Amino acid sequence: MRRIKDIGELGLIKRLSKNIKVDKSVICGIGDDAAVIELIKDKYLVVTSDMLIEGRHFLKTDKPNNIGHKALAASLSDIAAMGAVAKYAFISLGLPKNTTLSYIDKIYKGIIKLAGKFNVSICGGDTNASDKLTIDMTIIGVIDKKRLVLRSGAKEGDFILITGRLGGSLKSGHHLRFVPRLAESRYLVNNFKLNSMIDISDGLVADLGHIITRSNVGAVIYEELIPRNKDAKSLNDVLYSGEDFELLFTMPQKQAKKFIKASHPKGMNFFIMGQIIKKPKEILFVDKKHKVKSLKIKGFRHF
Amino acid sequence: MRRIKDIGELGLIKRLSKNIKVDKSVICGIGDDAAVIELIKDKYLVVTSDMLIEGRHFLKTDKPNNIGHKALAASLSDIAAMGAVAKYAFISLGLPKNTTLSYIDKIYKGIIKLAGKFNVSICGGDTNASDKLTIDMTIIGVIDKKRLVLRSGAKEGDFILITGRLGGSLKSGHHLRFVPRLAESRYLVNNFKLNSMIDISDGLVADLGHIITRSNVGAVIYEELIPRNKDAKSLNDVLYSGEDFELLFTMPQKQAKKFIKASHPKGMNFFIMGQIIKKPKEILFVDKKHKVKSLKIKGFRHF
Repeated sequence: MRRIKDIGELGLIKRLSKNIKVDKSVICGIGDDAAVIELIKDKYLVVTSDMLIEGRHFLKTDKPNNIGHKALAASLSDIAAMGAVAKYAFISLGLPKNTTLSYIDKIYKGIIKLAGKFNVSICGGDTNASDKLTIDMTIIGVIDKKRLVLRSGAKEGDFILITGRLGGSLKSGHHLRFVPRLAESRYLVNNFKLNSMIDISDGLVADLGHIITRSNVGAVIYEELIPRNKDAKSLNDVLYSGEDFELLFTMPQKQAKKFIKASHPKGMNFFIMGQIIKKPKEILFVDKKHKVKSLKIKGFRHF
Repeated sequence: MRRIKDIGELGLIKRLSKNIKVDKSVICGIGDDAAVIELIKDKYLVVTSDMLIEGRHFLKTDKPNNIGHKALAASLSDIAAMGAVAKYAFISLGLPKNTTLSYIDKIYKGIIKLAGKFNVSICGGDTNASDKLTIDMTIIGVIDKKRLVLRSGAKEGDFILITGRLGGSLKSGHHLRFVPRLAESRYLVNNFKLNSMIDISDGLVADLGHIITRSNVGAVIYEELIPRNKDAKSLNDVLYSGEDFELLFTMPQKQAKKFIKASHPKGMNFFIMGQIIKKPKEILFVDKKHKVKSLKIKGFRHF
């Protein structure tokens, strides 16, 4: 009998998607950071759902306001990865029966504070009794049609950039407190032409892997150029551990030249780390000694 | 230390909603069957999330295609209760690690079959490892603005009607196999003026309670008029056990007269069971011996 762990999360998603038929208003269904729906004349709806479960995405010992913050922030990061503006949140909570009201208040405090920062309206959801604390967060965003950025648009020659440093997120607690890169996303799509974008949740190599797989291209990245957090304990941590929630994006060389010359808003940092190459599904890694090796696309495994 | 069970689900929702600020495009946030959002000129978006958890909403021994069916059907029922057309579904799955692929295929088969029946596009979601099977389903629907029906519009003198028989849903397995009343909802809002509507998930008295509380009115219902399933084992079962997923709605007397004379589409049944009265928050129950008693608003408790 075959089980989930035999095919992994990506295999599972592929398997589940194969019999699904969607309406022509669904521009992009399963397979990007968020679904893209055409309902309005000039804008798309962008919708994402993320389920966080105690013991997997956070621990019982984590602060409840951080848990709430993370639940919203992780979904907002998906909306940012499309270039969209987050608008509405729907929260389904599974709560152990003996949960104290003050604990739930704190979860909500974390959610409401972050929602306020980005003008996200909490519109609904569901509450249920469950064994372990479970939070499923659905966000609806909107985006001008011409500004939409998918995973699938990367082109040979594109520069590969990232909004921040990688590694050590779990150890440092960054994964519980990060500010989703909505402002950076806004700035980028309003001022530059991006060919592709994704947020780093599964790890740099895995998420770069998503971009090149869906774009049918390859990539070369340089160890010296990959911005590293001081909490990162190893190169492997930087490449594979994930939950950094930075935006990884690619832009054509001409745009990149304009981008490098631009003075970016205060507090925003962007790092070039490599380029898109023609050879499909190949990630080449150039180490500090200028040795080149091919990386296997892998990252955090949910199953 | 106060816990959820001290204030119940409704108390919890009230507590969590009180600090939430929403954008003016949110016509109706937490507190109805679904949220209502104004994004398009003539239509509203209607959005609902429902989380189903193994051991609470279904059992491990239930057939997986029925579990999938129910997960979608329960959310579609909320969309029907607003008078809306269901369009897009987002499914977050929490799956025990040892789940077999064939079991997941069957869950999806149940979902896809029902989605196909009502032209609902499955657009995305999330998959995670969890201890117990957990399905969170978010549906986006659309509705012409003038056709929207809320819980809060019931008026003194309205007739109270229902789309089908009540009671015995858990015992008979109806709760796993019911067809959400989307067709009935469509017929009703396209042809008649309804003042309020809700679906029966928590039980007749609890859900009628939601209507009168939000409409600031009362209701009288007649035992002889309440349509009873043959599986219903008692009057209490009919009044309180819930998961019937019929639509309970109210319409002005003039409309009701037109409605009674109309020949409804084949297969649709509607039953009048009482009237809205002025006195707020009062549900009067007239038994078969014409004795009147006041019912306490209660229903299924999640906590």
